[in-house]
Amino acid sequence: LATLDPVSASDLAALEDVARARLDRGAYDYIAGGAEDEVTMAANVAAWSALDIRPHVLRDVSAVDTSTRLLGTQVSAPVLVAPSAMHGLACEEAEAATARAAARFGTIMTLSLAANLSLEEVAAVTPAGPRWFQTYMHRDRGFTRELVQRARDTGYAAIVLTVDSPALSRRGRDIRNEFAPPSHLRVPNMPPAPSGDALDPDLLALAAAFDPAVTFEDVSLPTEWSGLPVVVKGLVRGDDASRSIAQGAAGVVVSNHGGRQLDGTIATARALPEVVEAVGGRGAVFVDGGIRSGTDVLRALALGADAVLVGRPILWGLAAGGEQGVTAVLTMLGEELARAMAFCGVTRISEIDRDLLDWADRPGRR
Amino acid sequence: LATLDPVSASDLAALEDVARARLDRGAYDYIAGGAEDEVTMAANVAAWSALDIRPHVLRDVSAVDTSTRLLGTQVSAPVLVAPSAMHGLACEEAEAATARAAARFGTIMTLSLAANLSLEEVAAVTPAGPRWFQTYMHRDRGFTRELVQRARDTGYAAIVLTVDSPALSRRGRDIRNEFAPPSHLRVPNMPPAPSGDALDPDLLALAAAFDPAVTFEDVSLPTEWSGLPVVVKGLVRGDDASRSIAQGAAGVVVSNHGGRQLDGTIATARALPEVVEAVGGRGAVFVDGGIRSGTDVLRALALGADAVLVGRPILWGLAAGGEQGVTAVLTMLGEELARAMAFCGVTRISEIDRDLLDWADRPGRR
Amino acid sequence: LATLDPVSASDLAALEDVARARLDRGAYDYIAGGAEDEVTMAANVAAWSALDIRPHVLRDVSAVDTSTRLLGTQVSAPVLVAPSAMHGLACEEAEAATARAAARFGTIMTLSLAANLSLEEVAAVTPAGPRWFQTYMHRDRGFTRELVQRARDTGYAAIVLTVDSPALSRRGRDIRNEFAPPSHLRVPNMPPAPSGDALDPDLLALAAAFDPAVTFEDVSLPTEWSGLPVVVKGLVRGDDASRSIAQGAAGVVVSNHGGRQLDGTIATARALPEVVEAVGGRGAVFVDGGIRSGTDVLRALALGADAVLVGRPILWGLAAGGEQGVTAVLTMLGEELARAMAFCGVTRISEIDRDLLDWADRPGRR
Amino acid sequence: LATLDPVSASDLAALEDVARARLDRGAYDYIAGGAEDEVTMAANVAAWSALDIRPHVLRDVSAVDTSTRLLGTQVSAPVLVAPSAMHGLACEEAEAATARAAARFGTIMTLSLAANLSLEEVAAVTPAGPRWFQTYMHRDRGFTRELVQRARDTGYAAIVLTVDSPALSRRGRDIRNEFAPPSHLRVPNMPPAPSGDALDPDLLALAAAFDPAVTFEDVSLPTEWSGLPVVVKGLVRGDDASRSIAQGAAGVVVSNHGGRQLDGTIATARALPEVVEAVGGRGAVFVDGGIRSGTDVLRALALGADAVLVGRPILWGLAAGGEQGVTAVLTMLGEELARAMAFCGVTRISEIDRDLLDWADRPGRR
Repeated sequence: LATLDPVSASDLAALEDVARARLDRGAYDYIAGGAEDEVTMAANVAAWSALDIRPHVLRDVSAVDTSTRLLGTQVSAPVLVAPSAMHGLACEEAEAATARAAARFGTIMTLSLAANLSLEEVAAVTPAGPRWFQTYMHRDRGFTRELVQRARDTGYAAIVLTVDSPALSRRGRDIRNEFAPPSHLRVPNMPPAPSGDALDPDLLALAAAFDPAVTFEDVSLPTEWSGLPVVVKGLVRGDDASRSIAQGAAGVVVSNHGGRQLDGTIATARALPEVVEAVGGRGAVFVDGGIRSGTDVLRALALGADAVLVGRPILWGLAAGGEQGVTAVLTMLGEELARAMAFCGVTRISEIDRDLLDWADRPGRR
Repeated sequence: LATLDPVSASDLAALEDVARARLDRGAYDYIAGGAEDEVTMAANVAAWSALDIRPHVLRDVSAVDTSTRLLGTQVSAPVLVAPSAMHGLACEEAEAATARAAARFGTIMTLSLAANLSLEEVAAVTPAGPRWFQTYMHRDRGFTRELVQRARDTGYAAIVLTVDSPALSRRGRDIRNEFAPPSHLRVPNMPPAPSGDALDPDLLALAAAFDPAVTFEDVSLPTEWSGLPVVVKGLVRGDDASRSIAQGAAGVVVSNHGGRQLDGTIATARALPEVVEAVGGRGAVFVDGGIRSGTDVLRALALGADAVLVGRPILWGLAAGGEQGVTAVLTMLGEELARAMAFCGVTRISEIDRDLLDWADRPGRR
Repeated sequence: LATLDPVSASDLAALEDVARARLDRGAYDYIAGGAEDEVTMAANVAAWSALDIRPHVLRDVSAVDTSTRLLGTQVSAPVLVAPSAMHGLACEEAEAATARAAARFGTIMTLSLAANLSLEEVAAVTPAGPRWFQTYMHRDRGFTRELVQRARDTGYAAIVLTVDSPALSRRGRDIRNEFAPPSHLRVPNMPPAPSGDALDPDLLALAAAFDPAVTFEDVSLPTEWSGLPVVVKGLVRGDDASRSIAQGAAGVVVSNHGGRQLDGTIATARALPEVVEAVGGRGAVFVDGGIRSGTDVLRALALGADAVLVGRPILWGLAAGGEQGVTAVLTMLGEELARAMAFCGVTRISEIDRDLLDWADRPGRR
Repeated sequence: LATLDPVSASDLAALEDVARARLDRGAYDYIAGGAEDEVTMAANVAAWSALDIRPHVLRDVSAVDTSTRLLGTQVSAPVLVAPSAMHGLACEEAEAATARAAARFGTIMTLSLAANLSLEEVAAVTPAGPRWFQTYMHRDRGFTRELVQRARDTGYAAIVLTVDSPALSRRGRDIRNEFAPPSHLRVPNMPPAPSGDALDPDLLALAAAFDPAVTFEDVSLPTEWSGLPVVVKGLVRGDDASRSIAQGAAGVVVSNHGGRQLDGTIATARALPEVVEAVGGRGAVFVDGGIRSGTDVLRALALGADAVLVGRPILWGLAAGGEQGVTAVLTMLGEELARAMAFCGVTRISEIDRDLLDWADRPGRR
């Protein structure tokens, strides 16, 4: 495996190859797979590629700056680490490695509720690094309140509230592989499982603790509890986004959970424009799902997103090279974004707009 | 074959694999195949998948109810057993097994004219279970009248009149296989064959007994004869649907016979909206063809169908595990529908509407 | 080869397989191939399949009649034999076999200028059978005049003037095969080759005799010379069709020469509607290219064609079974058309209209 | 290799096969490859093929003339040699062979800044042949000024200023091949590399000499320095084209650098119409990218281009047969154009217009 140097891997597809070779089948498939027929998962990727770019030329691009400010946090590029479960599947150091890489790159690490390290452990690793904490609303609201307050107390700057999981999806790969996380992995932020073992990652049982009765009225609770801004993650509709903001959310993430929940859901690139329009500048709009290059980041920003979240590629980097691998992924995306901006004649994030895309005549546009 | 447990088969495609392994080639192909180049058969499936879903979030979905009322009959989910010939090809118990599974699940069994059991035999198996009876209009109207009256007398709640078969289609698989049903199978509801043997399933000869001169004026005959409501099955046009209702039909089934009659016919998912619009609430609208998941059921309901009929998957279940296999299929579809509803933020069938689909801008829409 | 019975071959694709096995590579490819990248040839076939059908139900179709009248000639079905070169490549009897089959089926045989039998020889074989004669306009107008007058004198009822060949196309298969017709084949209707050998099928040399300066003004010449109606073959535009009719043509054939001339030309199914509209009933409109089933015939008629011409399938029948094979092809197409009409609820050719197609919302429609 | 006679190679694809066999992998891939996932490179080719042609018939095409005048230079056909780097990779004679073939055919040779021969050496080979010189704007404006003045002094008739390369693209093939030009190749027109060795083709280092701060204000500089007209190459937008003309450019080349810079950029065939409209006759409009046949040339002209530039095919010809091979490529394209014009009923370049394309209803049109 000496030749599988993640830092020199020339693109994300190559990094995924390295990760696939290093991970066992069950873990690889758990990360790579989606729900049902994986139609939405594939559509996410394809929808970005379908957006043709119309670069500007003859503009001074001698200094390109990818940095931007997101909910008060300065980042080196609008590329965030998406919350994803159990980084311990990919690397022994788990979320500690990811968090260090994010901090070094200068972007936000979004820690998952289902992380293998507690939010305090991750905070201790990167006390200054920008961090957000992702959670679901539990049936036991008190449990969620405590989590949110622990997040505030350990320096997480925002709460990402995932709302696309009122039911368990069926993921064929995991069923066929009879996948269960390795027994040494803990999920210390999650509530005690029915078995009484608070740390066992029996995710199905644990997911039963999420409240399917959560509504827009609950969106403001984390802020009430902690003073932290809330970002609602997992919507694809303008009306839902607008209502989330009206109920106190500071932003939304256009997401179909990477195609892991309801297969058949619209691709995020196609849903993004109506959300941007509905939010109308009243909050931040993020997007994830299928982002595989810096050019995809530019496309998302051209459609009006403030930033993107990246999930699976982070885990490929982590599997291939730990902290260094994640750094490689983030650096690659940042450099590609800078290059795409230079090719498009724009030097600042705020200059990226929809006119850079061949969008106006698409039959499927809104 | 011990491992081919249909109840644990994780989706319909896996069940079809089991069925394919168990059935002989001729029987499998008779069930699986379509007319000519099988273009319409494939288009049926693809047309549902092409409908992107736009789920709602942050609605209380702690209690999802898939039950609904169809022409006065309460069902546990809007998923009916489509009429299909000769269940004896798939299972020794034939339609008795299917009917028991439907009754247990709580949905309507539509018995085919070409069943291997008489309508009285099936009625005896599930006296209370909701049952409909499907027939063609025969040249000998008296024969059809008797069938319809026997259906009423044995508790069938509606007559499904199939109208898409004025000619014999050419099914390449059956021709290549020189397919003939096994000699032990009888089709006791059908009229005597020209050979004089009333029970021989020489379907080609028997089909000659269907009247190609049946018209809209004949739609009300079954009701006149029996008092039972009539559902006209096998149309894809708004004008034909509207006229069927005007002539006394209680409902229609948008159907191209699963792609088994005129290859090149429009996919049912594409035809459904104009039928829904034309009927305008004056009757029930059902649809079949290519439904392969609970998410497809939700799509059909979102386009305005009251319920779907499922054909081939029922037979895969039957071949794989008899009554238990059919139960598995219906349960799977019902649970998937409930899950898709939860993901979409709807808790009752009546809340499913077209706004859940990314429909408005489709170039091919009506 | 005993099992390759063309009469029992169940569809045209199977017949082509038989023909491919019987013909040598050069001859097969000469018939099967098209110009350049064969894009137009493939598009012709695909464009018919793309037209979804919306059948009517509940109409009396107990008597379906496919017969129709074309430029004064009654045919059993609107399916004509297209002019194609050198039937001797496929069958020793050459055009004599084709003509007998056409006459028996009751349709028009269009004899090609490049036939291997003289127009008098073919007339002698089917003195009563409806026949048309196809020619180009030669640089030597007197030669064309004599041909046309010989056609009239031997009972040909119309002249088909092909106008899509002002240049030689490049057909890759023939180039790679270094194809030359077998030396025993003659093309007795064509003018003497520069070599002086009037009967040598050096088609390239002979094609040089066609006049690239022929214009709309020349369309009426065959009628002036012979009194026969002229059908202009090889156009895909409404304006050209309209002008042809205005200049005295009795009809037009929408054709791109089966994809054998300018590759990249629009598929005939897509060009047909604008031609029908432009002609506006002032003349007959025929179409060829990619017709592979009776359902395709119905589609062409639904778009407004009066009849279709069939080329390659005739030659597959001829290669597979001589006269019997051609009869099988024509019978198959006629029966499929009758069946498709019954499925669509129409009993006469004149009842087939555009409303049978899902045409209105197609983005590419005119 | 005796059979690989380029002059008899029947189309460009065959010529590329010959070239692939003759070149080493690194050189072949350097020429054949594109940026990132090569999506734009493939889209360029596909976009021309997607344009269906609607030929006119019955027009006198006995004399077809492909010649035209471009910025004052008469050419035998509107097919120019695109500027491309290092012809020495394909043929020992390098640009000398290409230039001689272009002159013999009667078209413009556009010499690349990164040629393996100096502009004086190429001028000496074809003193009368029409030549243009391509360059980037260097950070050292004086260096560019000298180049442009040397071009004028040695008979180059126009300056092609490439503006699509403000950054280095990532070309996966070259990275995987660890491609470096052979050490014997010089790039004598380029500025000294940082290593001090002015002639070493370390293109990456040399590219650093290009000025990323070049703007529309700089477009007129080459004309100010030399009196030569400037053609701005590498734009895909109407606004950029319009501004280029307003700033003094004599013309523009719609180009995405053959898909070698920003992958995801719109195909040139799709971008061309808006550029033609924006320029509005105030300057010449050229296009390159994916032109693979004379029919593609006709399509480009039908969309309003004055001429096309051809890149990779020239290098396949060069690799396959040196000067003779390039002549074969140009002759083939010219003859195909003439043939396509004859098939379309047009005899002069000025008669080719958009009505020859099935363009009006395309959903993606502008």
